[in-house]
Formats: sequence, structure tokens, C-alpha cells
Amino acid sequence: MAGLDGESLESLRALGHRMLDDLFDRLEAQGRGEGPAWQPTPPDVRLALLDEPLPAAPADPSRLYDEIRERIVPYGINNTHPRFMGWVHGGGTAVGMLADMLSAGLNNNLGGRDHAPVLVERTVVRWAAEMLGMPPNSGGILVTGSSIANMIAVLTARRRAAGPAVRVDGVDKRLVGYAGATAHGCVARAFDMAGLGTAALRVIPCDDRHRLRADLLAVRVAEDRAAGLIPFIVVGTAGAVDTGAVDDLDALASFCAAEELWFHVDGAFGALAALSPRLHPLMAGLGRADSVAFDFHKWAQVPYDAGCVLVRDAPSQAAAFAQSLAYLSRADRGAAAGAPWPCDLGPDLSRGFRALKVWMTLRSFGTDGLGRMVDGCCAVASHLAARVEREPMLELMAPVPLNIVCFRVTVPGRPDLDDLNEELVKDLHESGIAVPSTTTVGGTRVIRAAIVNHRTGPEDADAMIDGLLALLDRRLAGARPLP
Amino acid sequence: MAGLDGESLESLRALGHRMLDDLFDRLEAQGRGEGPAWQPTPPDVRLALLDEPLPAAPADPSRLYDEIRERIVPYGINNTHPRFMGWVHGGGTAVGMLADMLSAGLNNNLGGRDHAPVLVERTVVRWAAEMLGMPPNSGGILVTGSSIANMIAVLTARRRAAGPAVRVDGVDKRLVGYAGATAHGCVARAFDMAGLGTAALRVIPCDDRHRLRADLLAVRVAEDRAAGLIPFIVVGTAGAVDTGAVDDLDALASFCAAEELWFHVDGAFGALAALSPRLHPLMAGLGRADSVAFDFHKWAQVPYDAGCVLVRDAPSQAAAFAQSLAYLSRADRGAAAGAPWPCDLGPDLSRGFRALKVWMTLRSFGTDGLGRMVDGCCAVASHLAARVEREPMLELMAPVPLNIVCFRVTVPGRPDLDDLNEELVKDLHESGIAVPSTTTVGGTRVIRAAIVNHRTGPEDADAMIDGLLALLDRRLAGARPLP
Ligand SMILES: Cc1ncc(COP(=O)(O)O)c(C=O)c1O
Ligand SMILES: Cc1ncc(COP(=O)(O)O)c(C=O)c1O
Repeated sequence: MAGLDGESLESLRALGHRMLDDLFDRLEAQGRGEGPAWQPTPPDVRLALLDEPLPAAPADPSRLYDEIRERIVPYGINNTHPRFMGWVHGGGTAVGMLADMLSAGLNNNLGGRDHAPVLVERTVVRWAAEMLGMPPNSGGILVTGSSIANMIAVLTARRRAAGPAVRVDGVDKRLVGYAGATAHGCVARAFDMAGLGTAALRVIPCDDRHRLRADLLAVRVAEDRAAGLIPFIVVGTAGAVDTGAVDDLDALASFCAAEELWFHVDGAFGALAALSPRLHPLMAGLGRADSVAFDFHKWAQVPYDAGCVLVRDAPSQAAAFAQSLAYLSRADRGAAAGAPWPCDLGPDLSRGFRALKVWMTLRSFGTDGLGRMVDGCCAVASHLAARVEREPMLELMAPVPLNIVCFRVTVPGRPDLDDLNEELVKDLHESGIAVPSTTTVGGTRVIRAAIVNHRTGPEDADAMIDGLLALLDRRLAGARPLP
Repeated sequence: MAGLDGESLESLRALGHRMLDDLFDRLEAQGRGEGPAWQPTPPDVRLALLDEPLPAAPADPSRLYDEIRERIVPYGINNTHPRFMGWVHGGGTAVGMLADMLSAGLNNNLGGRDHAPVLVERTVVRWAAEMLGMPPNSGGILVTGSSIANMIAVLTARRRAAGPAVRVDGVDKRLVGYAGATAHGCVARAFDMAGLGTAALRVIPCDDRHRLRADLLAVRVAEDRAAGLIPFIVVGTAGAVDTGAVDDLDALASFCAAEELWFHVDGAFGALAALSPRLHPLMAGLGRADSVAFDFHKWAQVPYDAGCVLVRDAPSQAAAFAQSLAYLSRADRGAAAGAPWPCDLGPDLSRGFRALKVWMTLRSFGTDGLGRMVDGCCAVASHLAARVEREPMLELMAPVPLNIVCFRVTVPGRPDLDDLNEELVKDLHESGIAVPSTTTVGGTRVIRAAIVNHRTGPEDADAMIDGLLALLDRRLAGARPLP
């Protein structure tokens, strides 16, 4: 056996089977809610990981696996656990894991060239478009996540508005865009990276349900036009990261059509609500977007990382990214055929076979299965919101249109509620009971539980609240004062 | 069992073991050079893949695996095969595959938060810096590939040169940068994406060994300064994609130090030559860079995708990318501790656990093992170049400093050599014998064999040449005329 494979493939095969069994054992245990929702990495483990010297000599992979099992596996962020409700993390599935194992073993580079894996990606992109109500001939590619997907959309709209010269001569700094105050920070960062600057993204205030106010948008666009600026894009949010709020996409689509603006929707997690017949109406207008960014690694439970950008007018995307390089010239037959290549549609040249884990996930569960799972997460969120409203020491802090519940502990007469809530969330993390996170809503720090993991049930939400109230009691009894 | 895992974990476990055995069987067969180096996807398979309707209902994963085995696995780009020498594709390893299986199963999101996988990434970044002679406290992160790594370096240098205002107010279009004519296209695209435009990247001519001419660079920088422009970055290439040429990094580092310019090195594949004691001198000056982009998925054989950017002054990188978002606030304890987070250092928020496959690869083989493998690839390239020089119908078209051999078939008196060489490469692909690619060197189309796969031996290079000459005979005999 040549190269690095050496004589070791037989022993690696045995090791691989052992790892696989351990992974399934872990998934089964977590499915039963066993183990802590999170635990801190002990100081000695932390040091051992950080101090490991650059290895010069080879080491036995099975010894390395012992280290992985002892030092890494137990101290992960652990978003596979049913009581992990922090930020917006998908839970992964065994099916996705197996597909990713295949991708890693086959090791195809999906930057381009003529091969079946690229066809699988094209199919997955078409499915994504159909799922969200976009035309089936929309363009698009898989990327790491919605941050890059939003960047691709901004760059595509920038090129569309400014013409080919923008790629050669640089940006026209009169270009301006618009998003609601709830838009994710990566949209502003896309403006930063694109050379427009974050100030070129106008932040439009939201209504009391956290949705972009279309009336204020219209005023701002008119003002900018009057000032000689060039409005080019409106970003709607389908599932705001703090509260799950969904902008009125249909109204924004109509506004953009009338004003000849690019309509982009950031549906990082929320777009998947389109698969639930019950929630589908919330997504009205999504299919009218010029581009959509969303993730498979969030609500679609595909293992990290896997995002997707869709572009209604496929050639616009290629116009923003394609290059001609001598060594990447395209042939009419042979391995260099198959143009256009995915590398023409985004910043990545070399690209892994993300498409396989998405293909396997969509086919294994079907859009019906995923839609039911989305509904299930929202039902857990409703259950949690109802519980919050019943508890005298808790207060619901935002409407719950989807799967995110913002609430907080409230103790009459205490001036330090922001700190108290922050400390309680940290207590909860350290207890291993559950992992919600925190954010700010209307200037107030709140506890935020995002029900994204398909394994999370109502009993997990209750366990989180029970744990929180017990920790509150302890603090109120002075057992653990605020620092 | 809750959620999507359903009742199916037991049958998925069995399926996983079957997949794993198939993957090992395939690696063993390819290690013996069995099967075609590439084969076209048959039209019926292509249609079946492209026409598959969006699945509404669930499907049995083991039936899906049958489809994968029949329709996808045999028709991949197949860069695991020892006679794949096209473009610059790593071959992957079983160790990397197993590590990626673990990553997918554990499903950690490495955007941030306090957990051991993030520590593994920090360690891997430190190892990368040490491998390349950069200071061990350099900053950096893992990314999809060198395209994004180069983009991060350009944006970091842009922010450093222009100050914080660039992120808010947009680019200063007086900023200009420099790279040799051999620089990879993704560097120009980084200038495009950054809003500077590709014209702001000055293309400096190269010498007859394809290395950036430092004398012409100095002239151009002086001219630009005199014209009121603001030079901010010089990009050196360590391993040009067409020929493997390595710029004089030490001279560029000195020039940049004197001129107070950011010195970035694109060492996508070539940087790994630093691990070979024999080749190490070629990389002199690499450790003086302000930033380096390189890939683990290329010469380090880590499965796709895995690139890396290193930044000598770590805070500059955070200054170019960090944001403060309410829901991503950092805590002193609990799961939200552990700042700075990787999402502060690049465009990605959600990120997979790429670090594990890199960690496992570096530890399993050690830098000694990887250095020997790099030497081995270069030895195959030398063997191939010597063979080319011995063959009367072949001509070597560029020096071979590393692992890339550019050559072509030459038939006295034929005016259509560009076409002939292109057609022969396509014939070779279709024959399944071997997969080199093509490029242009000094205006001439050439055949290009990049020996990046650790499984490729001298016998594979000879098989490629034997195949090529046989196909040439066939064409010269008129059996297969040019189209
Ligand atoms: C609405 C929204 N947009 C964008 C993002 C960024 O997505 P990613 O983490 O996949 O880059 C998120 C992440 O939670 C999000 O919720
Ligand atoms: C010198 C050089 N730079 C950059 C790249 C792009 O790297 P990636 O494909 O990892 O994005 C390549 C790809 O071959 C390269 O050879």
C-alpha cells in the first residue's frame, strides 16, 4: 500500500468501527437525555489540549482516539443534547453523520469539473429552491453558513446594481442598502467586507412585533434617492435571531418590485418554517425574493457546516463571481468538462461534498418529516412560553412566532435584574441541567431559549424552567450571592 | 428515542458499519491502483441524479445508500486515485476520514463559546504557525480553503492600512496592492470582493523561473506612491498554481519591511514544503510574513475542505472581523465564556469541527511523516520530468521546483499543438488511465501533472506517459483525428 495509508488500513478499519459504535452509543444516550447538557473543560484537560507540542513523530491513531474520548468528546459544546437550547444550533442526525463520513472518505473536491457529486449539489440546490417557493431554475450553491450566503447575496446584488466595472474598479460608494433593526450582524459585516461599509446598510426600526416597518423603509429610500445615493438592496429577515420575528416579506417584495431594488431574505433558520403547512403563511413572499440565505445545519439538522444561498436569476450570481483562469479552463469532454462549475458562484474554489449530507437528510426524512419536526420545535416553544406565563417569577419578553422564547426572571423591587438573569443562566450552564443563552430585547437582558434541536421535548423545557427556579431560590436564599 | 432519530438508530448503526467497510475496501483497491482514474457519468445516471424530485416522504437510508453506491461513488472526481494528477487535489487519508466522521457525529459548532473543540482549533493554528516558521502566538483560523484565507488576509491588511473607519464608511479607493503574474486568481477576486476592484491589484511581471521580479515591484510601488495612491499589501506566492514556482520570499519580506507594507504569502500547497528539510530553503522568508494562507486539504492530505490563514499580529485579524452582537455576548463562566471566539476572526459564524481532522492528521503522521511524503511527491515529479526529457515526442515546458510538471507533446511541423495537447488530455481522461490537467505557460497550452496525492508513485507517472504516447500514436495514425 502506497503513501500515508501504509500498512495501517487494517487496524484503522477496526478503530473506525469502534468509533462508529461509540458515536451511536452517545447518540442513544443523549436521546434519553443522559449526561450534562454542557460541562466546563477541566483546567488540566484545557492545559493538556493547549500545551500539546507540534508533533514531529507519528503516533498510533488508537492512542489518539483515547485522547479524543477523554479530552474532547465530553467537553464539546454539546448541541446534540436535548436540553441544549442556546443560540441557534441544530442537533445533527445519525443519517447526516453517515453521509459526512462518506463525503470524507470519497474526498471529492466540488469546486468544479465533471463528476456526479456536482450533479448532486445542483439537485440539492433545486430542491432548496422548491422548498422555499423559489423557481426551480434558481441558481445557488452550498456554503459554510448563512454568513457567507448573505455575503454572496450582497456581492451579487452589488454587481447587478453597479455593472461589471465594480469588479475591476471597486465599489461605487453611493450604493446603499436597507435592513430591519433585527437583521443579523452578518448582513452589516457583508457590507463591511464588500467595501461599502456598515453605514451603507440603513437600519430601519421595527414594530412592536420586531418586524421591519415598511413605511419607514419607504421614507428612508426616498430620502437617500433625493440625496443622490443609489439604493440597491433590501434585506428582509425571516426568523430574527433574537426573537424569531418574521418581516412582512410579501410587503417588502412588492416594495422592491416597485422600486427596482434587489430583495434578499435572510432566513438562516426561519426559512425552514416554509415546510410546515401550519407556519407556511408566515413565509408568504419568500418565493418572490431575488435571493435567499438559509442554513441546513440549523433547523434542517444537517451536521455542521452547511448553508445555502439561492439566487432567482442564476446568471447574476455567476456574473458576480466567475473568473477565467488558464488552469481552470473548461473542456467539452473529459474530467475538465461540466461547466459552469460551483467555483463560479461564490468565493470558494476547493469545496467539500456538503451536498451529500443535505441530499441524504432531505431524502431520509422528506420535506414532510422535516416540516413535522419544525412544527414540533414550535410546539415545545409554545409549551415553554405558556409555562413562563404561568410562573409568577417569570415574564415573557417577546412574542413567540416560531421556536424562540425570550423571557426573564423578575423579582419585585430588585434593581439588578439584568445581572441576576445573566448569573442564573451561567449557574444553569454550570449545573449541566440546560443551556439557554441570553440576549437583549428592547434594552433589557433576557433569557433566550431557541428550540432548534429535534430531540428537545416539552419535558426538556420544563426541566430547564425547574432548574432555573431552583437556582433562583438558592440565590434568593443567599446561598450563592451575585458576584 | 425523540426527534428524527426515531426507532432507526439500530438499523443506521448496521448501515454505518457497512458503509465504513465499503470505504476501506475502496481505499485499499485504490491504493493498489485499481479502477479507472476517472470515468464520465453515464447519461442515464446523470439524468437520474438531476431529475430526482424533491422528496416529500421519508425513504429508507439503506435504499438511499444503494443509490449512492451505484450512481455517485463510481463517478466522483476520484482524486483519491494514485493516477489522478489534475489541478492540485489532495488524496485524503483514512485517518482524516475517521476524524471527520467523529466531527460530524459530535456536531460541535465552532463559531465560539467555551468548549474543548475550540481549544483544539487554537492548538492546530499554533502548530501551523510553528510548521511554517511563524511565531507560535500568531493568530489564525481554519477556513474552507486558501481562497477564503487569502480574502481574510486582504481584509485584515485593508483594515490595518485604513483604520477602523474602513469598516463603517467603506473602502478608500486609493489603496493598492501587488502580486506576481503567477498569483492565483483568488487574490484578485479578494480585491474584487473587498470593494477595491481587481485593478487595484497590480500585476508584477515574473522572471524566467516564474518568480515575481522584486525590481519591478519597487518601481511600481514608487510610481503609485508618487501618484498619490496608498500601497498596502504585497502578496508573495509560495508554489504558483501553474508551475510550483516560489517567489523570493525573503527579498519580498525585506522590501515590505522597508516600505512598511503588509507582506502576505499565498502558500496554498507550496507552504507545506517547509516540512521537508531538503526543500525548506525554498521557503526562506515565509516566517517573516504578516499573514499566510495555505491548505490542509491539498498537500497535507486532510479531507476536503480545510484551509488555514495565519496572522502574525493576532489582534489585527480580530480588528478586521470582530463585531458585538447582543445575543453573542461573552460571559466570564458558563457556556458563553471562552472569548475571543473564532467567529471574531473571519466571515463565518457557524463553523464545523475542521480542526479535528487536521489535529488527527498532524498527530498521526507527525511533521516528519508529512515532510517525507512531500519529498516523495517531489521525487515523483522529478522522475516524471526526467522521463519527459528522455522522450523525443515530449518537451518540458517549465522548471520543476516542487511537485508540478508542465510539459507537452510536440510533433515537428504541426501547427496545432495547443489543440493536439488538449485533445490528448481529454483522451487520457476518457481512457481512465490517468488525469493530468492543462494550463498555459508563456502563452502555450501545456499538460500539467501536479503530484499532490501521497499515493502517486513513479510507476503512476510512467503509466500516464505510456498512456499519453499510445494515444498520440493512435491520433497520428489517424485512428482518432482532431475534431
Ligand atoms: C437570522 C440569522 N442570520 C444569519 C445567521 C448567521 O448564520 P451562520 O451562523 O450559519 O453563519 C444567523 C445565525 O444564527 C441567524 O440567526
Ligand atoms: C497558489 C494557490 N492559491 C490559492 C488557491 C485556492 O485555494 P482553494 O482551492 O483551497 O480555495 C490555489 C488552488 O489550487 C492555489 O494553488
